[in-house]
Amino acid sequence: MALASSSRKVVDCVVSQARRSIARSGCRCRVVSSTHVPPSQYTAAVMAAFSSSARHEGPAVSSPPQSLLKPMDVPKKLLMGPGPSNCPPRVLAAGALPMIGHLHPEFLKIMDEVKEGIQYAFQTKNEWTFAISGTGHAAMEASVANILEPGDVALVCQNGIWGQRLADMVDRNGSTAAVIQCPMGEVFSLEQIEKGLQEHKPAMVFITYGESSGGTAQPLEGLGELCHKYNALLLVDSVAILGGYPLYMDAWDIDILYAGSQKVLCSPPGTSPISFSQRARDKIASRKTRVRSFYFDAKELANYWGCDEHPRRYHHTAQVSTVFALREGLARLAEETLEKSWKDHRECAELLYEGLEKLGLEPWVKNKDIRNPCVTAIRIPEGVDWKSVVDYAMQNYKIEIAGGLGDLGGKVWRIGILGYNCTPENVKLTLKVFGEGLANARK
Amino acid sequence: MALASSSRKVVDCVVSQARRSIARSGCRCRVVSSTHVPPSQYTAAVMAAFSSSARHEGPAVSSPPQSLLKPMDVPKKLLMGPGPSNCPPRVLAAGALPMIGHLHPEFLKIMDEVKEGIQYAFQTKNEWTFAISGTGHAAMEASVANILEPGDVALVCQNGIWGQRLADMVDRNGSTAAVIQCPMGEVFSLEQIEKGLQEHKPAMVFITYGESSGGTAQPLEGLGELCHKYNALLLVDSVAILGGYPLYMDAWDIDILYAGSQKVLCSPPGTSPISFSQRARDKIASRKTRVRSFYFDAKELANYWGCDEHPRRYHHTAQVSTVFALREGLARLAEETLEKSWKDHRECAELLYEGLEKLGLEPWVKNKDIRNPCVTAIRIPEGVDWKSVVDYAMQNYKIEIAGGLGDLGGKVWRIGILGYNCTPENVKLTLKVFGEGLANARK
Repeated sequence: MALASSSRKVVDCVVSQARRSIARSGCRCRVVSSTHVPPSQYTAAVMAAFSSSARHEGPAVSSPPQSLLKPMDVPKKLLMGPGPSNCPPRVLAAGALPMIGHLHPEFLKIMDEVKEGIQYAFQTKNEWTFAISGTGHAAMEASVANILEPGDVALVCQNGIWGQRLADMVDRNGSTAAVIQCPMGEVFSLEQIEKGLQEHKPAMVFITYGESSGGTAQPLEGLGELCHKYNALLLVDSVAILGGYPLYMDAWDIDILYAGSQKVLCSPPGTSPISFSQRARDKIASRKTRVRSFYFDAKELANYWGCDEHPRRYHHTAQVSTVFALREGLARLAEETLEKSWKDHRECAELLYEGLEKLGLEPWVKNKDIRNPCVTAIRIPEGVDWKSVVDYAMQNYKIEIAGGLGDLGGKVWRIGILGYNCTPENVKLTLKVFGEGLANARK
Repeated sequence: MALASSSRKVVDCVVSQARRSIARSGCRCRVVSSTHVPPSQYTAAVMAAFSSSARHEGPAVSSPPQSLLKPMDVPKKLLMGPGPSNCPPRVLAAGALPMIGHLHPEFLKIMDEVKEGIQYAFQTKNEWTFAISGTGHAAMEASVANILEPGDVALVCQNGIWGQRLADMVDRNGSTAAVIQCPMGEVFSLEQIEKGLQEHKPAMVFITYGESSGGTAQPLEGLGELCHKYNALLLVDSVAILGGYPLYMDAWDIDILYAGSQKVLCSPPGTSPISFSQRARDKIASRKTRVRSFYFDAKELANYWGCDEHPRRYHHTAQVSTVFALREGLARLAEETLEKSWKDHRECAELLYEGLEKLGLEPWVKNKDIRNPCVTAIRIPEGVDWKSVVDYAMQNYKIEIAGGLGDLGGKVWRIGILGYNCTPENVKLTLKVFGEGLANARK
């Protein structure tokens, strides 16, 4: 009797606490039923209702797959495509450090270092700066989910696949995408964007800084100011350019900026740096509807990453090993410095352009000033079987040269010069192999 | 002139292709403007509108953070909490294999092996079986986002934190969560669930198989059949139990099942196995609204993982290194076999229960038949400072013993016996340290 009574107290306590937790979270779920039989009776009832035979004499277990009983085959390649790039040994070694708990103080310290590293790479002092636990598309989706409410309009500048993907996410979010386009390989003018701002009164403008499908680097100066003049936030995708070309989040008035780990940061794909300006945070704070995603909720993530004044709450289990690796990729950039990294990428890109010219090839982007030095799209000459060049490089040298993406599929090759792979030696080797492959394709 | 004319052709082509791409995707975005000036003029206009000074003489670059210029400090610990668990050397080594492209044939083969490994671990033949690129919460959100439409009701069985989180996600998704509760440490009866099914006519029922906050193992037999009788799908969370206790997705008529990588599979957190039955796929196919998440869209993910008859499309960049590691965790399970793994976890749990009894402690879950052998919640005796026991183990032995989560915070400790850590030696050592910590706390 004493047990039943004390247990009953626990039951009541648990139910009321659960109700409080739900109320706290802003969730409007109804608690429609709770148990009122004392637990001791309750368990007996459960066990009677469920047959427990399967626990001990369940169905026959199917056999383990044969494919898993053999070792993995992972060849070493030189990844000169648009990413992932090769990871330096120190980054791979960091990812193989012993596992620790995602709330242990040693891990929280590493999260803090990652935040500082992202602030440096982004050139921002934003408090809400952290890494999303997912690849670049996850950061893209997180931007949309946090900033836009149903009914909000986003002006999407589309000159490649990323604008298409973002417009798709806006639509899924119940918001409206007003798409303005320019051809892949070209960039937007302030005038064209201003026209869009005037016509569509968007809550947010999306633009891709480094287009990996079209190969452009979009000029960004003055754009943040322009967006703010029309009460719009500026969201910038820097996945395929961060660290390889000048980027100043604060000085350029960017409100939401995200990147990927597997390009110039040369860490494994899986974590995506992101940062929110105070303007972006104000928009989030003024939402009338809940952010549709729990996993991508920036306010919760900012708390989990220690970006606010409250104690860190458990939001999800951080990707411990991938965060270790990202930390080391950021440390590499910090040691090298942004200025040197920008310079190296520009010089290697110049070397590539010269070499391509000697091979009779030309970048898809005519104007050198708007080329993304990190990913070069190369026009496929008429009559050349692009695939045979790609296959030649892979089969003979294990070098990755990529084909086109989206609407440039079959029209361009793409060569990436990213982070650890950004050396004159790699560019020269790639050009040599490219030339051989081209000669072979023309035979 | 010849150039302008051919470029103009490209412009028109690109714009119309982009429109087709958008139409194909089902996205309702409006293309509201596109460029009609010839690219050669266009670029000049852009460059005039944007000042390019920042490229070469931009703002001063802030200094790299000092914290990143020192090496990382990651101690070796024995993780006897509810996860992540320690990764075996072979898993860590797999995660440090050279990077390869996420669409290279060698990686696609490894994805196929991961699918087979998950099918084995889940005991399912479902074609739509793959890993979400995110931690357990991501798979939870993916389940909600794909199955439920606005207006749909989910019956959420809540006996711990996971039911709370799931209900929150349902609410964010614009659907309705009807929550039925039983106390943490207890499990649901078929009768209680049937009452919920009758009253709320849900499209889906959610239940946690292995509760890591309450320490229960929910009997599941007959539940799938019951749900189907009422036209509801059954969604089961097996994060904290998969591989450590019998589970038969097909034989038990489970429609959506997900798990995590960082528990019994002893791989780093970051990928989450998930599987959808034909019934679940039918529900997805009959949706009237788009899945709100692009990143978690099961149909797109199934294609990317090669689970349908179409060629694989690029959806997102898979977490290459984390997938390598998951593959090796699954290979370890395949070599060991499920039967042995279930037996080992049961035996180690028994050893733990005996040891706790000798220390005068008792599991929160009274009935041994409904205890999750992988995570044991232990009632904190009155007058004992739980935190000092946890600190003692960490400070003196670098052993993790966890506190309570959610409404059992301050009421229980939690000990995890997961995968690579599931050995009698680890259990005995943990008990020894636990006993010392307890004596120390009572001093």
